[in-house]
Amino acid sequence: MTNYGKCFTEWREAAGQEWHDYTRHEFVEGIRLGTLPQPAFMNYLVQDYMFLINFCRAWAFAVVKAGTLEEMQACSRTVDTLLQTELGALHTEVCAKAGLTPEALAEVEEAVPNVAYTRYVLDSGLSGDFLDLLAALAPCVLGYGEIGLRLAKESAPDNPYAEWIATYAGEAYQASCVEVGQLLDSAVARRLGDHPEATPRWTELSKRFTMATRLEVGFWGLGRE
Amino acid sequence: MTNYGKCFTEWREAAGQEWHDYTRHEFVEGIRLGTLPQPAFMNYLVQDYMFLINFCRAWAFAVVKAGTLEEMQACSRTVDTLLQTELGALHTEVCAKAGLTPEALAEVEEAVPNVAYTRYVLDSGLSGDFLDLLAALAPCVLGYGEIGLRLAKESAPDNPYAEWIATYAGEAYQASCVEVGQLLDSAVARRLGDHPEATPRWTELSKRFTMATRLEVGFWGLGRE
Amino acid sequence: MTNYGKCFTEWREAAGQEWHDYTRHEFVEGIRLGTLPQPAFMNYLVQDYMFLINFCRAWAFAVVKAGTLEEMQACSRTVDTLLQTELGALHTEVCAKAGLTPEALAEVEEAVPNVAYTRYVLDSGLSGDFLDLLAALAPCVLGYGEIGLRLAKESAPDNPYAEWIATYAGEAYQASCVEVGQLLDSAVARRLGDHPEATPRWTELSKRFTMATRLEVGFWGLGRE
Amino acid sequence: MTNYGKCFTEWREAAGQEWHDYTRHEFVEGIRLGTLPQPAFMNYLVQDYMFLINFCRAWAFAVVKAGTLEEMQACSRTVDTLLQTELGALHTEVCAKAGLTPEALAEVEEAVPNVAYTRYVLDSGLSGDFLDLLAALAPCVLGYGEIGLRLAKESAPDNPYAEWIATYAGEAYQASCVEVGQLLDSAVARRLGDHPEATPRWTELSKRFTMATRLEVGFWGLGRE
Repeated sequence: MTNYGKCFTEWREAAGQEWHDYTRHEFVEGIRLGTLPQPAFMNYLVQDYMFLINFCRAWAFAVVKAGTLEEMQACSRTVDTLLQTELGALHTEVCAKAGLTPEALAEVEEAVPNVAYTRYVLDSGLSGDFLDLLAALAPCVLGYGEIGLRLAKESAPDNPYAEWIATYAGEAYQASCVEVGQLLDSAVARRLGDHPEATPRWTELSKRFTMATRLEVGFWGLGRE
Repeated sequence: MTNYGKCFTEWREAAGQEWHDYTRHEFVEGIRLGTLPQPAFMNYLVQDYMFLINFCRAWAFAVVKAGTLEEMQACSRTVDTLLQTELGALHTEVCAKAGLTPEALAEVEEAVPNVAYTRYVLDSGLSGDFLDLLAALAPCVLGYGEIGLRLAKESAPDNPYAEWIATYAGEAYQASCVEVGQLLDSAVARRLGDHPEATPRWTELSKRFTMATRLEVGFWGLGRE
Repeated sequence: MTNYGKCFTEWREAAGQEWHDYTRHEFVEGIRLGTLPQPAFMNYLVQDYMFLINFCRAWAFAVVKAGTLEEMQACSRTVDTLLQTELGALHTEVCAKAGLTPEALAEVEEAVPNVAYTRYVLDSGLSGDFLDLLAALAPCVLGYGEIGLRLAKESAPDNPYAEWIATYAGEAYQASCVEVGQLLDSAVARRLGDHPEATPRWTELSKRFTMATRLEVGFWGLGRE
Repeated sequence: MTNYGKCFTEWREAAGQEWHDYTRHEFVEGIRLGTLPQPAFMNYLVQDYMFLINFCRAWAFAVVKAGTLEEMQACSRTVDTLLQTELGALHTEVCAKAGLTPEALAEVEEAVPNVAYTRYVLDSGLSGDFLDLLAALAPCVLGYGEIGLRLAKESAPDNPYAEWIATYAGEAYQASCVEVGQLLDSAVARRLGDHPEATPRWTELSKRFTMATRLEVGFWGLGRE
């Protein structure tokens, strides 16, 4: 079982069906079984490039909204990881193999569910505080961690998407998930105290987590031929 | 022919097919002919309520980003109109007739194309300047004006959506469109000079206008049974 | 005794010496006694014009960050009041009498304490949530209300600053203070519940209120010959 | 002569007296001659710690507002440098030597000119676009580079502030100045074209650069006993 902290555990529980729809989406199952058609995967990957650009902007916004030096540093590390590892290695390499240049990637038209998700996260930072932004960022980061771990166990060694699975099941990504989980817990404690569940904010944050989860489901829908 | 200024005329032209898809959408034609089923209209109206809340937030953001007292005042007037006229009269009344309370409206789940559109507009303000925000706000305001005028001419007097058409074809709404068109032209001139087309900014603004237009098309799609 | 709600009462108490330094500043006493030299008053008024522009932007930002239609409407009313009454009537008239055109006002160089105060308020909205922004906005709005009431009682009828005093002691301004106080209380309850004092957020908000109060003291310092 | 690009050269020229007041401030001359009293330097350093926190937030905001992956990466590198080198090494070490813990630093009350400067920069990002933010960020980054180079040439080897001078005259800092200068030029060209001086935006950006320079002068004033 993943151990990404207390907030995640409770908000994940509250997200119920939406969390299931996200982490057990047919796209995810297609990756697990290796049956997802390659063109569908490429459609996803191309949209994911634009997604990561805006997701990275949202983590940078978290640096702007952090309340301590430690919070700034934690968020800044995520910005780096996204700019270097994910946007750098994974995407550019995989896309290059498929004949997609960075220039071509930058020209891709963002699909509506992509716009919806990333701009919702950014608006969580504009309209709310650090916690609102984190609650909207969490489902993607931690959901991929959970999916990665499960698929690493449940997929065959010759799975055509083994590299993708290994990225999210890997130590580096899992370590960053644990760190984000801790950031979430400490940020909530620092602002709402030891019994955050007693405040209306807790419910709002949980709802925001669910909403972002719902938007993740829409995003998987882009992985179609 | 509508006369909403020079920027609008050129950006509308550049939006080409997207502008056509937006202003001649089957939903719009259904209203014009009076053939749109009432439940489809209600689905639209309910989403439009949430839309207007966020659209109003975006106009308030324009007050934050304005460069002169006049720009602040112009944007603030739009915030007022939205909070009072559209969110107040039109929606609350029409929805009340259909048995929808304001409380019920506030609980409605935002559809993905709705989230995409409004948060894209708000992010235009977060990522860009006053012009970026205006370019993203313009297609909705001015497109409804154009649609209103056309439908007022082309629809039958006993059209079941006559009230909706009259709102957007009416003097008050048309006057605000003219004002927004002038605001656009003067704001662009104030920042980019007398030959804004010579700057890369112009192309970016035009693209943003087109993107917002494309998101409008997605929004009409919510008006289904 | 002013009755601007519970949050104000407690945060004002916590601001202690800073609140005293602000509301009993020698500039305020100079107005009360009518001994403040006219040029000092004009220096203040000219800076106050720039202040109100940015203060108005901050209230518009509160519309962007509000959580309910009622909160949006309350903040939007304040934007209107500032744009019309204060920036419109009071300043333009008083400044016009003194030979200052709106154009001249717009060219005035903002003093450092003016920049510090207004941008601190705006950054409270950027870095925090609706409550952070309100906590930074409150000392100015409500402090002027408290000062107005006291000076109306304690100043002579022929005080040369009678008009200024009457503005802030007047029914319209006092009503808006009561409304802002209620907005504060309801916004806090809506987010932090019935025992907001139990959360770390409460202390942070109180500190922010004190910081804004301290910046008000610096602003009065601009009212010198 | 420093070579930080074309925009810097022209905006620096336009800042005229303010630029001189900033880079030849008596605090700077006190460092150059080694006559600045140690307590004055510590007062500066303690405020500079808070300054760098907010300056770092502003660079993170630039990541949010960037228009290309390269712009994001350039701004993100500056965030890292600030979080690690300046906030990490320089300050923590120097402050530790002087008996100031990070906890003590975090509790220091921000002086008004410090608030004014950093929040003005952040508001440049909130109210404007990427260029506005860069124009407000540039005087600090590049001015320190210019000062560092001059003082390295004009100060004695046994200067008590040799370490401070070496930091800003050093290769690493100078390289980051050159990069920021290039970022400025390319960002302006990308948005305003090859003749940015022909647009009103250019004048506004130059004014913003001057305003930030003026606020730097106020900041040096904190370096007093």
